[in-house]
Amino acid sequence: MKENIICLTDIEVKTFFPNNQFGKVKELLGSHICINPEELSGEEQWLDVLKKYNPEIIVAAWKTPALPDLLSELAPNFRYLCYLPGSVRKIIPRSIIENGAHVTNWSGSVSRTVAECAVLLALCCMRRVRYWTEEMHFKGGWKTAETTTQSLFERRVGIHGFGLIAQETAKLLRPFTSNISAFSPSVPDEIFLKHGVSRCDSLEKLFSENDVIVELAALTEHNQKIITEELLRSLPDGAAFVNVGRGAVVDEEALARVASEKDLQVALDVYGVEPLPKDSPFRGMSNVMLLPHLAGPTTDRRQDAGAHALENLRRYLQSEPLVDQLTVGMYDRAS
Amino acid sequence: MKENIICLTDIEVKTFFPNNQFGKVKELLGSHICINPEELSGEEQWLDVLKKYNPEIIVAAWKTPALPDLLSELAPNFRYLCYLPGSVRKIIPRSIIENGAHVTNWSGSVSRTVAECAVLLALCCMRRVRYWTEEMHFKGGWKTAETTTQSLFERRVGIHGFGLIAQETAKLLRPFTSNISAFSPSVPDEIFLKHGVSRCDSLEKLFSENDVIVELAALTEHNQKIITEELLRSLPDGAAFVNVGRGAVVDEEALARVASEKDLQVALDVYGVEPLPKDSPFRGMSNVMLLPHLAGPTTDRRQDAGAHALENLRRYLQSEPLVDQLTVGMYDRAS
Repeated sequence: MKENIICLTDIEVKTFFPNNQFGKVKELLGSHICINPEELSGEEQWLDVLKKYNPEIIVAAWKTPALPDLLSELAPNFRYLCYLPGSVRKIIPRSIIENGAHVTNWSGSVSRTVAECAVLLALCCMRRVRYWTEEMHFKGGWKTAETTTQSLFERRVGIHGFGLIAQETAKLLRPFTSNISAFSPSVPDEIFLKHGVSRCDSLEKLFSENDVIVELAALTEHNQKIITEELLRSLPDGAAFVNVGRGAVVDEEALARVASEKDLQVALDVYGVEPLPKDSPFRGMSNVMLLPHLAGPTTDRRQDAGAHALENLRRYLQSEPLVDQLTVGMYDRAS
Repeated sequence: MKENIICLTDIEVKTFFPNNQFGKVKELLGSHICINPEELSGEEQWLDVLKKYNPEIIVAAWKTPALPDLLSELAPNFRYLCYLPGSVRKIIPRSIIENGAHVTNWSGSVSRTVAECAVLLALCCMRRVRYWTEEMHFKGGWKTAETTTQSLFERRVGIHGFGLIAQETAKLLRPFTSNISAFSPSVPDEIFLKHGVSRCDSLEKLFSENDVIVELAALTEHNQKIITEELLRSLPDGAAFVNVGRGAVVDEEALARVASEKDLQVALDVYGVEPLPKDSPFRGMSNVMLLPHLAGPTTDRRQDAGAHALENLRRYLQSEPLVDQLTVGMYDRAS
């Protein structure tokens, strides 16, 4: 048998493909079978399914079981994994991509929602939303003559990393300030120019010469805990540090220490260990905003990832180049 | 004697006129006296000061004592009150403006900071910041498979009122959505066109056909509690109601009731009674963001109001028309 496989839960179908976009997916795929991963009894049944249907295309999401190393033996016809979310490492082994399989994920289609969360968190830092939420709700609080607040207008914002999310962040920051710089040695000058963002030469300058830092560096072998205590202490008084990228890029013990000692606002959506441990020192700190890794995409914008997937399915079937097809290099850098 | 009066505290001087802008004010005013209102022993001494110096210009802020009804008798030379903050009713009686005195306040120079707060609060509603702050800090929380979040991208935003702050809000919303409408019968079509905002014909439509409502209507005799329970209940499920305008425009009892019963996110910076009473039903509600009336201007942007005042002092002294000189009508509509 040769049937393409769509392996999605009802919620995944509804959120990625609302307004009958799913009908279009099914129409495009032609001969296919829909499998609800929640109804699979286990890995064995999944392997049986792959073997039985020998799919050329697999449409998958969070609940789809991982593809096995030996996929090419089970399903020699397999060519394209259209993965709706982002984290491909969970679903497909590197070797399958090395052997030439096509893989796409949500890629840049969700960048703007992460950027939105970065701007939200920067604004929260400026207005001390973390502090005021506790004061207003649990302490009967109100402002005093000493209350200090800040605005994003005219602030110096430094972004660590300048990939797609950082570029979207710069767009959303633009109405507030033109003082935007980024540190990202690998991104060429044209991209900086295109977005009207200044290149910053070093992390040291990025941290010591900006009022707001947005952490968006991809995690690599080489940059674990690259945001050191020294860098964090070099931030100007009253600065804000926002992380919507990867928690492990930051020395989190140092961050908790510096935040407890320095005039600093911190806002975190990502952590070295997730879920954030219940005894994390960040919990309870009145100058540290915390979100549970929900920067992007929001439930209501999963449809952007769905539209991106639909376009890639169309392209694949018409033998056109895919948008943001994953390379082995991208796989290695991915989360 | 004839001396202009600057009656400001050190903090007021520092925040409204940083970077030696105060030097420019003093230079402009020529012969003047600086009075620290915190050093005045009481109203009597203030009246003595006014009588003694008989100022043509008074530069004032929050801590300056109110000008008396009989100012023209005490200081017949008085012509111009350059009030740095916004709420002129606290500082000058209506009669003095009726009799032809010039008055300016911060006017539109601070609009963008209030707009910024409106966007912040709308984003907070979308991401459930109020809820997550409590969960993450005080309940050891983390997201689950059922966690729902929203984005401002592509949302329908309806603004009640379309004055300067609403216009600035539309500018900041633009990168997120082009779906912006406003209800404000008194604002002419040209202003809507200029900002690319659709005119909404009624409050009923504004509330029932938008996902996010930004409340920015000026308070008048006629619109107290005009945001009724019925309007609030007509909001679509999952909608957000943000108030950075005036609390008394809203039936707050109804709002608390509706928020406790309906799938609604609420974010408030202003209240019918301020400071917000300690036993307000809003305190503690997990779908209601609360800030203590700090939408604008932030401490760091008081300098925008200072620059505006400086420009008006220059104009006054060169007999040019003042920017946004207060009329009796504006006084009556002011907070």
